[in-house]
Amino acid sequence: MSQDTPKPRGRPPSKAARDKALVAAREILFDQGFGRLSVEAVAARSGVGKPTIYRHWANASELAMAALMAGFPESKSQGASLEHALSRQLTDLVRAFATTRGRQIAMALATADPDSELTRAFRNRVILSSREAGRSLIATAADRGEIHPPAGIEVTLDMIYGPVLYRLLAGHQPLDDAFAAALVDGALKLLTPAK
Amino acid sequence: MSQDTPKPRGRPPSKAARDKALVAAREILFDQGFGRLSVEAVAARSGVGKPTIYRHWANASELAMAALMAGFPESKSQGASLEHALSRQLTDLVRAFATTRGRQIAMALATADPDSELTRAFRNRVILSSREAGRSLIATAADRGEIHPPAGIEVTLDMIYGPVLYRLLAGHQPLDDAFAAALVDGALKLLTPAK
Repeated sequence: MSQDTPKPRGRPPSKAARDKALVAAREILFDQGFGRLSVEAVAARSGVGKPTIYRHWANASELAMAALMAGFPESKSQGASLEHALSRQLTDLVRAFATTRGRQIAMALATADPDSELTRAFRNRVILSSREAGRSLIATAADRGEIHPPAGIEVTLDMIYGPVLYRLLAGHQPLDDAFAAALVDGALKLLTPAK
Repeated sequence: MSQDTPKPRGRPPSKAARDKALVAAREILFDQGFGRLSVEAVAARSGVGKPTIYRHWANASELAMAALMAGFPESKSQGASLEHALSRQLTDLVRAFATTRGRQIAMALATADPDSELTRAFRNRVILSSREAGRSLIATAADRGEIHPPAGIEVTLDMIYGPVLYRLLAGHQPLDDAFAAALVDGALKLLTPAK
């Protein structure tokens, strides 16, 4: 079921109220965890009325996604060489998921309505933006003759970025800097250097 | 919070009642989805009393995990060559996750108490068993001189099996046979053939 944002009724919702609700939602998520986040709890903590909150988000899950998304670092894709750029990007990414936020992100993604517009935005912003930054890194490296353009770019990107979500969800191995460095080594094996 | 299985009270729970409850839980999961599974619904459908159900599982989430786990195919790891064995295993794995069960597995994993014994069993059986089968495939291929033993085996395994969970959760690309084949190609690039 796809769901549009409810049409505003009465006064247009103010940006200040929206920001206050997001801050309160983030505090509840980080202090008390995903299960404690309700529209009631956010209203009580922020002083923003429930009707105003519902003008911005359809339910607590959408509010949680918005709060997690707002605090997630942008994926950078710059560096002197492909190896350097990948190393910076993957180290930042792994560190961002290694926080308590990580599990909340996995939970938000798994429990959300998969077809809602906000879920898609969340998936793009938090899960797939690193993959898209990687695509641009690889294209740049191919353009400047550092590597051959890879044949199976989609699966190559999945093999570089998928392991981060895998470790986050399965928890069999740590999300640490050594992991990021090993992913860079693996990525370079998948990408053939131009002679 | 880790939680032990509740101690049986009264008569020991019968295996027949347990199996009936699992079948009903699976039917509800596949017909109506994860959100509809409650201990009440399973009791109503199976004719097994709620107290009996609670003697086996602490809550609806544990019952759902048990039901999903019981229906999940075993990961095989045999084949004439490393390429052939990986291809069989990854094709089976990708097909198993491509069903509606796939999303329910992701949801069960993300919403479960991460420390419970059943969650750990579920993770091992459904998410990590393919990875362990891959470890044994690679060790066998190294033993028979097909490849060099990989230096970073943990990350190598993450790069082969992580993409499956990644596509399942992020939904940016299909879980199909072409994906499985491309993962095999990628895996062979990560593993250095012995001269």
